[in-house]
Amino acid sequence: MSADPHPWAADLAELHAQVWTRFTRGVRDRRAAARHPTLATVTPEGLPQARTVVLRAAERGAGSLKFHTDIHSAKVTELRATPFAALHVWDSAAHLQIRMEGEVTILTGEDVAAIWARVPASARLAYGSTPAPGQPIADGLSYTKTPDPTAFCVLRLRIVAMDIVHLGTDHRRARFTRTDNWAGQWLAP
Amino acid sequence: MSADPHPWAADLAELHAQVWTRFTRGVRDRRAAARHPTLATVTPEGLPQARTVVLRAAERGAGSLKFHTDIHSAKVTELRATPFAALHVWDSAAHLQIRMEGEVTILTGEDVAAIWARVPASARLAYGSTPAPGQPIADGLSYTKTPDPTAFCVLRLRIVAMDIVHLGTDHRRARFTRTDNWAGQWLAP
Repeated sequence: MSADPHPWAADLAELHAQVWTRFTRGVRDRRAAARHPTLATVTPEGLPQARTVVLRAAERGAGSLKFHTDIHSAKVTELRATPFAALHVWDSAAHLQIRMEGEVTILTGEDVAAIWARVPASARLAYGSTPAPGQPIADGLSYTKTPDPTAFCVLRLRIVAMDIVHLGTDHRRARFTRTDNWAGQWLAP
Repeated sequence: MSADPHPWAADLAELHAQVWTRFTRGVRDRRAAARHPTLATVTPEGLPQARTVVLRAAERGAGSLKFHTDIHSAKVTELRATPFAALHVWDSAAHLQIRMEGEVTILTGEDVAAIWARVPASARLAYGSTPAPGQPIADGLSYTKTPDPTAFCVLRLRIVAMDIVHLGTDHRRARFTRTDNWAGQWLAP
């Protein structure tokens, strides 16, 4: 009988710590699963939307995550109407489904000038598009990208709850909430 | 100069066909990216949720996808209140982000008896849990799974729009809608 590869999954505190280990790795490692979560939002019409985002910061102490985006993208419009998001990661190496729920703050201008200053020139091309992202164009390449600091914004997700599923030999599921100081509660999977 | 590995990305009809190729593969191949999409829904309180689902059917003619779930899961409650879902796949091999929007029908009982009959005995354990999925339990393994055909339901997503992004040497984005008979429209990415 081989040793359990994920002993942390059987303990609430260790499971919670493992989630932050994965997110911290996602900030630094392009190949980590948590590098590219799926961010779900609600449109002004009340319908769901989901898209890939790139994880830029993970702060366990504050319980928050950060993402960069173009202020003219649809997700910013959606988050202005409903400033809540769900975030999803399936980490196949850890057999872990990570689901986050939280409040989103949209940071712009002076509040993000220091972050913009550290964005590499090549990456700045992702912020500033003519026409704006999502606008119809005649041909697939009928657009230009020009770095525009006024198009750059940071989404800060303040996590209020996490729903974690570990699909090991046994399946375990737990919910961690900010109001419970992340102590955690086992749930039926 | 090497050949473009994804020549289909430059043509609307071929791009649309490629999406269905990926979904068809997802039904049959456990390792395909489209095997495990992320399904986003809206709670009765109007907040977003997202979780992994397993793709069970892809019907290009009908423009629909199917998933199996436990009728007592939170996503069924959410879909009863707001019968719309967004579906997300990041297919890294194809450099393709696939986003679907559609209406969801929840099929149960007699309507799914023929599908249930073909679900292998081991897989039936996923439908029927005491307590129900998401209920608090004292310990991580304080639950039992017993196959229950009345807990089995099929979610049918009738796609109304697709938003597709190809991240190749050039980035291309297109939107395909049912009302446009899937002809497609290029968008600024």
